[in-house]
Formats: sequence, C-alpha cells, structure tokens
Amino acid sequence: MSIIQTSDAKRVDLYPSRINDKPSILERKDPVVHGEHTKDSLLSREQLDFYEKNGYLFLESFFNEEEVAVLSAEANRLKEAGKKSSADEIIREPNGNEVRSIFAIHREKGAFEDISMHARLLNIVENILGSSVYVHQSRINFKPGFTGKEFYWHSDFETWHVEDGMPRMRALSCSIALEENYHYNGPLMVVPGSHKKFISCVGQTPDDHYKESLRKQEYGVPDHNSLTQMVEEAGIEAPTGKAGSIVIFDCNTMHGSNSNITPKSRNNVFMVFNSVENKLQEPFSGKKPRPEYIGTRE
Amino acid sequence: MSIIQTSDAKRVDLYPSRINDKPSILERKDPVVHGEHTKDSLLSREQLDFYEKNGYLFLESFFNEEEVAVLSAEANRLKEAGKKSSADEIIREPNGNEVRSIFAIHREKGAFEDISMHARLLNIVENILGSSVYVHQSRINFKPGFTGKEFYWHSDFETWHVEDGMPRMRALSCSIALEENYHYNGPLMVVPGSHKKFISCVGQTPDDHYKESLRKQEYGVPDHNSLTQMVEEAGIEAPTGKAGSIVIFDCNTMHGSNSNITPKSRNNVFMVFNSVENKLQEPFSGKKPRPEYIGTRE
Repeated sequence: MSIIQTSDAKRVDLYPSRINDKPSILERKDPVVHGEHTKDSLLSREQLDFYEKNGYLFLESFFNEEEVAVLSAEANRLKEAGKKSSADEIIREPNGNEVRSIFAIHREKGAFEDISMHARLLNIVENILGSSVYVHQSRINFKPGFTGKEFYWHSDFETWHVEDGMPRMRALSCSIALEENYHYNGPLMVVPGSHKKFISCVGQTPDDHYKESLRKQEYGVPDHNSLTQMVEEAGIEAPTGKAGSIVIFDCNTMHGSNSNITPKSRNNVFMVFNSVENKLQEPFSGKKPRPEYIGTRE
Repeated sequence: MSIIQTSDAKRVDLYPSRINDKPSILERKDPVVHGEHTKDSLLSREQLDFYEKNGYLFLESFFNEEEVAVLSAEANRLKEAGKKSSADEIIREPNGNEVRSIFAIHREKGAFEDISMHARLLNIVENILGSSVYVHQSRINFKPGFTGKEFYWHSDFETWHVEDGMPRMRALSCSIALEENYHYNGPLMVVPGSHKKFISCVGQTPDDHYKESLRKQEYGVPDHNSLTQMVEEAGIEAPTGKAGSIVIFDCNTMHGSNSNITPKSRNNVFMVFNSVENKLQEPFSGKKPRPEYIGTRE
C-alpha cells in the first residue's frame, strides 16, 4: 500500500502497480460479488457462487441468432466505415493497417447502445456489482482468420486503476461472441481464481501510453513467475460455444488469447460495466487520464 | 502437370507448385497407405483406415514416462549447447535469438538416433509406407511458454517436392510430444482429409529460400481460399494428450499451430520418414537442393 499525492488530497492506493522494480502479488481487498441473490436474480445461487470463486461465468447462447445477426451486421458496418476513418476510436494492428478494435461503440445509436441497456444483461451485471452501473468502456475486437493476433495476459483492472483512476475492484466485462468460438481460433482464455490476487507490475507508465498499448501492451504486463504460479494453482479455461454466447468476467481476472491462423474469424464485443459507486478518480499513475472513449469519466 | 528440364532428362512433375500466378487444387496421385495390414501390424485395420481417410493418427502415450524423460533431457542438452553454437542446424526465432528448432538430431548418438530406429515406431511407419524407410529430416521444435510463435499452415510435401526433389507422396512425419499438449498451448492442428488434395501455391522459390523459410515461411504458403474450402469440408483437429503421445501424419496433410502465451511450453520432436523407393531427385524448383541436414540425400 502506498500513499500518493493527487491534486485533491493524499489518497491511499490499495493496488499499487508500476511503482516498484520487482513484481509482487497482493491480496484482493474488495468483494467479488457485491450484491445478494434474490427472487429477481436471473443468475442462480450456484452461478453467483461459481463467479465468486472463479472470476468468470460462461452463458451459452445468451443472445439468440437474430440478435447476433443484428450485432454482426452493425460490427461489419462500423469496420467498413472505420477503414477510411482517422477517428481515435479505431485501433489498428501493430504491424499493419488492419482494424483491430473499435472503441466507444455503446455511444452509437442502435444495436450496441441497446446492448448497454439490455434488461437481462443488466439484471446479471447489477446483481454482481450490487448497484446501478454504467458503461466504463466498450469495443469490438476483430480477430480475423489466418492472421488474428494474440492478446497477451493482463488484468484489465491493473490498467483501469493505474491509467484511468478506477479506485476499487467493482467492475466487470461482458464478452459477446459474434461468431462461434472453437478451441483453435484463439478463444478468450481465463485463469480461474486469478481475480483474488493482484499482480503489481514492474515498470512505469509512459505519457500517452494508451496510444501504443491498445495495439500492443508493454507496461502493466504481469511477470512470468506470477502467471506461472496462478496457472499452476487453477489451470486455464477457454469457454467455447456458439455465436451469441457470453463470458462475464471480473475486472481483475487474468485473461488473454492466442493467435488465430485458422480460417474461422473470431470477432467479439466487449462491454465493460462499472458500479456507479466506483467512479473514476485521477489516475494512480499521476499522469493525465486516458481519453473519454477509452474510460468514461462523465 | 508440367514437364521440366533437369540435367538428366525430361521429367514429369506430378505436383507442380510455385509456377503459376494463381493457386489451384490438384488431386493426389499416390496411395496414402502403401502397405497391407498383416498379422505383424501393430496398427489395427481400423487405425490404418482412419489414417488413410484422415491423413493422421494420434497414439496417446506411445512413449512411456521414462522414455520421454530421456528425450526431454537430451533436447534440453542440445538447446543449451545450441545457444552458443553457430551451427546451421540451429534455427532461431524470427524476431530474436531464441532457439526455435534444431535439425538433424537423428545424427546425434543416443536418444534421438534410437528413436529413428525404434522397433515399434518403424513397424507402423513401414506398414504405412509399404517399404523400408530412412530419416528424411528430424528436428526438435521448441515452443516456449509465454512467447511461443505460431507455425502457419503448410503441406510439408509441397516444400520437400519443390525444394528437395521428393518425387512422390510416400513419406510421413511423426511428432512426439515432449510435454503435455493442451488445447490452449498451441498444439499441432491438422485438417483431416487435406492430404488427398495438393494445393499448388503461387509465387517462386528464391535462392537459398530455406535460410529464411525455417524462421518464417513466405513462399510455398497455401492461399486463403483453398484453406477455407478444405476446412469447410472437414474442420480442424488438434489432438491433445500426455507427454509421450505421438501424431503420425502424411507428408501432404495440411497442418500448423497457433501461438502459445500460456506458461506451458510445448516442445516436440519431429522425425520424418521417407520410403527408400522415394529417394530425392533434383529439386522441382530447378534450384540447387537444400543442405543435407534439412533433407537427407545420401
């Protein structure tokens, strides 16, 4: 724990990272499931318990075929538009011009805005986070066939805390598969139980780090020893299933994905929800915050 | 089919590749299983039929734990020695100095030479190839944890034919897992049935192509449409199992593997056997042959 100086006041940093020159593993200091199971809960007690223990939950075919078709069409439309756009929201592959991600898609009227207000989804998210929520970040990740690149292991919270000023672990991601996930087309991998430890990473945070890190992350990356230890304890899970399936995972769950040389592309939508009681403060890096389209501040 | 001029005589090229500027898919003109099932066969009729149809066969725990321990120790010894070596047999990663492969390991006295003469293995290989055999190529592929790189799709035969002068499809590879293969640590993927078609690739063969292609292949690479068509027909299989398991696959089976960001390294040994009745001729590229440590000529 370290005390850092902000413009407002001295503030306790419960999850210091990129401060020391050696990595360390800290205990989580926040609940995982912040709400209670009630008669209105769509998730069963068992599902909430599974999420608490493992830090993720896989819900096969949560969206039906028609819903997926609408989302896919909208994703493709945005990708086509993105090819010619110079908007900051469009992130390209590290070694090329291919569109890798599009951010802030929940601001677009239509299918993605609808997802951000989707009643069944919000029931689950608010149950887990124990309050009203808002969209902290949203994006489409395009993982094309043949040339899909890997996403290295990371805890989202590490970055959101250090670079965006998210104070506590009270957020989660929902990954929506726009195409079938096979074990061989670079599916999302999670380390069960990893959400209960916080890997304090080495290094620093360069100015405007996000401009490179969204293409390929170099800071805030967990060290090999800590990862090995986590995987030794609980292995790796990579849920697979039909388009429309979702993985909900805690903001601190270690996750990543391998490359995809198969012809089966694997595009997916990420919608990140944060508790309204966990709004962003100044970044714990002491740097200026990342832009609004990466981390909602307003 | 094209007729090319060699120093000896006009020769028919049954599998022309890197000649045209458009890819095409040709029929296989050779048997897959060249021998017969007999009372001495270690493989059952069903296994031989499976191999004929699918172009590969997975044999779990073919080598026992003690045998694997000996092979692993020898692989690590060679890797350590290779770090400081400038021998041509040592291939390094495309973006670094890490040892990616070591070739011609069957020439080393001891564990790997033993494998090349292993009685149970040779029973299977000679049964499939229908003759005595010799080692055309051998290597260890090191796929480390965290940073293991992908191997893009390819038919070995395409390269062996064009660059080494292997005339017919009468060879196979045996991949020996030195560590457990999981679905998530970049296991060998094969396209079942792909061995019955030959993808004639576009492009050419630069001089000394092997010096780069063993690090990252750019010529002799199948096109996206042909691959997509093959995968649509039969999908992708990625056998997983304990260390000591082997995958035997036809020289023309399309195969590859994804990257490996997990902490679980995936080192394996490849031993390629060719029929003595299918010895190398002059390369069909018209270029000079690759060196002896990549394709045995003597």
